[in-house]
Amino acid sequence: MAEQNELMELAKRRGFFFGSNGAYGGTAGFYTFGPEGASLKHNVESAWRDQFTVRLGNDEIEAPTIMPEAVFEASGHLDGFDDMLVECAECGESHRADHLIEDAVADIEDAEALGVDKVEDLIREHDLACPTCGADLADEPVEDFNLMFETSIGPGSGQPGYMRPETAQGIFVEFPRLKEYARGQLPFGVTQIGPAYRNEISPRRGIIRVREFTQAELEQFIDPDEDEPPLGEVRDVEVTLYPATEQNAEDGGYVDTTIGEAVDEEIIGSPWVAYYLGIAQEWYERVGVDMDRFRFRQHLTGERAHYAADCWDAESEISGNWIEIAGFAYRGDYDLTKHGEYSEDRFTIFKRYDEPVTVEKAVVDPDMSALGPEFGGAAADVAEGLQALAEDDPDAFEGDEVTVETGGESYTVDTEVANFSVEEQTESGEHITPHVVEPSFGVGRTVYTLLEHGYSTDEVDGETRSYLSLKPEVAPTNVAVFPLVSNDDQLIDVAENVSRSLRQAGISVTYDDSGSIGRRYRRQDEVGTPFCVTVDQDGLESDGEPTVTLRERDSATQIRLPVEAVAEELEALLAGNRGFSDLRDRYGNVETDVTTT
Amino acid sequence: MAEQNELMELAKRRGFFFGSNGAYGGTAGFYTFGPEGASLKHNVESAWRDQFTVRLGNDEIEAPTIMPEAVFEASGHLDGFDDMLVECAECGESHRADHLIEDAVADIEDAEALGVDKVEDLIREHDLACPTCGADLADEPVEDFNLMFETSIGPGSGQPGYMRPETAQGIFVEFPRLKEYARGQLPFGVTQIGPAYRNEISPRRGIIRVREFTQAELEQFIDPDEDEPPLGEVRDVEVTLYPATEQNAEDGGYVDTTIGEAVDEEIIGSPWVAYYLGIAQEWYERVGVDMDRFRFRQHLTGERAHYAADCWDAESEISGNWIEIAGFAYRGDYDLTKHGEYSEDRFTIFKRYDEPVTVEKAVVDPDMSALGPEFGGAAADVAEGLQALAEDDPDAFEGDEVTVETGGESYTVDTEVANFSVEEQTESGEHITPHVVEPSFGVGRTVYTLLEHGYSTDEVDGETRSYLSLKPEVAPTNVAVFPLVSNDDQLIDVAENVSRSLRQAGISVTYDDSGSIGRRYRRQDEVGTPFCVTVDQDGLESDGEPTVTLRERDSATQIRLPVEAVAEELEALLAGNRGFSDLRDRYGNVETDVTTT
Repeated sequence: MAEQNELMELAKRRGFFFGSNGAYGGTAGFYTFGPEGASLKHNVESAWRDQFTVRLGNDEIEAPTIMPEAVFEASGHLDGFDDMLVECAECGESHRADHLIEDAVADIEDAEALGVDKVEDLIREHDLACPTCGADLADEPVEDFNLMFETSIGPGSGQPGYMRPETAQGIFVEFPRLKEYARGQLPFGVTQIGPAYRNEISPRRGIIRVREFTQAELEQFIDPDEDEPPLGEVRDVEVTLYPATEQNAEDGGYVDTTIGEAVDEEIIGSPWVAYYLGIAQEWYERVGVDMDRFRFRQHLTGERAHYAADCWDAESEISGNWIEIAGFAYRGDYDLTKHGEYSEDRFTIFKRYDEPVTVEKAVVDPDMSALGPEFGGAAADVAEGLQALAEDDPDAFEGDEVTVETGGESYTVDTEVANFSVEEQTESGEHITPHVVEPSFGVGRTVYTLLEHGYSTDEVDGETRSYLSLKPEVAPTNVAVFPLVSNDDQLIDVAENVSRSLRQAGISVTYDDSGSIGRRYRRQDEVGTPFCVTVDQDGLESDGEPTVTLRERDSATQIRLPVEAVAEELEALLAGNRGFSDLRDRYGNVETDVTTT
Repeated sequence: MAEQNELMELAKRRGFFFGSNGAYGGTAGFYTFGPEGASLKHNVESAWRDQFTVRLGNDEIEAPTIMPEAVFEASGHLDGFDDMLVECAECGESHRADHLIEDAVADIEDAEALGVDKVEDLIREHDLACPTCGADLADEPVEDFNLMFETSIGPGSGQPGYMRPETAQGIFVEFPRLKEYARGQLPFGVTQIGPAYRNEISPRRGIIRVREFTQAELEQFIDPDEDEPPLGEVRDVEVTLYPATEQNAEDGGYVDTTIGEAVDEEIIGSPWVAYYLGIAQEWYERVGVDMDRFRFRQHLTGERAHYAADCWDAESEISGNWIEIAGFAYRGDYDLTKHGEYSEDRFTIFKRYDEPVTVEKAVVDPDMSALGPEFGGAAADVAEGLQALAEDDPDAFEGDEVTVETGGESYTVDTEVANFSVEEQTESGEHITPHVVEPSFGVGRTVYTLLEHGYSTDEVDGETRSYLSLKPEVAPTNVAVFPLVSNDDQLIDVAENVSRSLRQAGISVTYDDSGSIGRRYRRQDEVGTPFCVTVDQDGLESDGEPTVTLRERDSATQIRLPVEAVAEELEALLAGNRGFSDLRDRYGNVETDVTTT
């Protein structure tokens, strides 16, 4: 397992990521992905798109990152998207009040759930000091601090706007249009990959808690009464679950099971959530997460948003801590109902019945020329009261007179004047509010997990080597091509031809002719390049057809094979259709010290 | 040519893009890319990455969109990134003051260049009224309005931050690290694709002037004294240029020439800018811009940023207007020098000489034990003055005494005390500030150009048809597959197999079984799908091998070919290795009315 510092150092030195604006002293919570990191991140996003958009048949959209205040009034972020802030009067440093409590008080794990007042009390009770300067925090107020970055749209007075705290709102708010593109048919899913923002009080742990990050989210819209996920596709997928019951139990532990069994035994409540856990499990394995350092943990009751019926996190183990790298929530109709209430648009789907349904409906058709003179200004209310009564209690119209209550008064009406009848009405369908199932992935945290889980060290030729064991699909570069020396035209010619033919086969190639071969191998090992091809004089001067060496990153072993075979063999290796050991059987190892010195 | 309204309607109806937050009344200047538009935009970005990052061998990075104030103090955006604002006191509407002048006064084309005071005068002189409510604007002040979206980073007092107005600053500010990844060697290029923000006073013209948009930028760092672009690669590329001299001339016009000639004849001043115009010309052609509605226009002197030695825009004609879709600027050392001045880091490259250079250097080594007693507190200044004098005027040390001026006083020193000598020093290189050449592309404007230039109408089967003639590389979908009817298991089976085999070949496929075939064709025509495959009974029931029809979008003609040949033929068609007419020759047309009714 990598020390976090070693990995952060490698990440900076090799261009995976580094704290932004270093020349200006750095800006806490902001990271820049360098060339290797941007490529790795882009490949992770492509793999996500391939699974969650293309293969699942969903639509991807791209919405702006700045959104107007009205959206967040409806979503609840304006009121509730807060963290607890305590500022030190002495040094001016800001702290997460709940984290101070959790760090200081042994048996409190989720101080946020206690509320502001209780946390303020606890700080006083435990006489907590500022972690930065040591000053007493007992008299400082604890406040809710909204985590959205605020800005102003347009000149002058403008209108308040916010950097979106999640990509999801850009999908929810456009539901009235998106349902048209789906031709009004449930279920359908919409995805988005893009930046999201949280103005964290105290960013920490490298790129784990940052202020600007990339989310990949899928909003799956379903008819809760009819739509079932294609659970058969993932029934046999094996998962490690950490249900709430086990977390609460004295001697609780993990449940190793399959998605199918977890649904059958109701460990996972929602089949839709279970389906996406299965899809995610396979996807994480595909991109290279170490599945021995991975689990799905159910939210405890207190953790869960009030509207979420069930919620599970994908968690990976990073430097000894479990961190959330994705969330899977059954959000019910919360989001669409809220936007329906706050906006002027319809956030429903018209659900057509298989056959039109005939319903009996009690109606009145009051004779207003009689009600008017009798009840004056109250006549309209009385008519409304009669309709309501007809629906609630049709029997009331069986006598000669009927009495309605409205505006605190009783009115008695001749049943004949009410014109009561039971009519048959034909309805072709109804407007329903779809439910939402949301798999939400943190891209940066996935990237970081891949780096930590891929980071390895071993001994090669008596020297300690560190390398990143990244899957070819996500590795920044697939293949590096080296001419052994940089002053031999024939070598360079062959090396350039090999590069070209690999690139034509759609393989990403780094060409490097500087430094010793050992140095070049180490550079590629550290950025996770799965294969290196070295062109040397021995191979070109041999009696038979010209050969080059092909080196595998993880085993650091080499084989010698004909130049002509390189592109085809690498295509097969990278696609996973062939293993390096197959090639070793066919071509045989070569002495490593030929080229690693 | 498309009417703009028609295209905007199609863009919304078919899911290319639409104004964001429509449910909340809309937010001016913000657009959401729907499923078709997000796919088209993503494909344009991939094509850009392929050309400007991969093929040119540059590095891509991804920096945050929020940056701290210090960056924009250095870049000049905090002071100078303004538009002229005039607010109507009557209705409160904000207007671009310079645009009001340009619209009202016939011979003023660039009112911004006149300055705030002059524009205020002109509004009074011409008695301009508010375009919204008609109220008099003569007494309203004109102000500079900064176009950056401002926010606050961190809680409490926080620190001011801004949404980046261009992706470029995220590259410039990290130059000290990026040069390490380039191993300190010029030239090297760094690219970035991502959101940028301008808080426009009055957004207009659909997605042309928006407040949040995507840029694709390349910062090419060069040694101005040594690095030459590989001009040979683009020497013969034909371009339509509109140089400043022609724009200023009475009867000026376009210059149709080649990149090579334009450099030879000094129409384009910088070979680097010329090189990128050539690369861009070919790229725009590749993605499907109509090159008859495309030109490169040189900036006029007044338009150009003061630091830009030369600047050209790529412009496309949209609904009768020429709009900027990319800019190509020779920025000199402006950006790196500024960040070097404002920050604590070094924004230079150490340029090693081919051979160490020996220089003669006049130095002093004053005897401080003599200067101290004589000059007291001024001794250090006197020593410094002696060194400066030695460098400027070594002859001054030839006599017995030497006089230096410092702090307004004269000091006379014995030459012996100064210890003057001329030493030989060996220097292995020098620190230079690289120059920057910047091709900067607007992705949304490119997308919009492709839609407008691709939008066509014709008559098919006696009906008017509209279609988007998008290149396969950027079209949201490559191929649509239709079973002729949706209740025939054999048809559906074959259609699903065809879809699968195409997807395995890496082709993006839409499967559609709803509505008449004519409707399905029209739907695909309107989203620009190049080819449709229809599986019908006739084809499966024929005596020979089973066949399907393949329809080309632009000609709306069909051929019938064996199911087995579909994937291979489509691969060749999409790769541009075969034309539809080749297939027509081989397989023959089929009657169109078989399936279009």
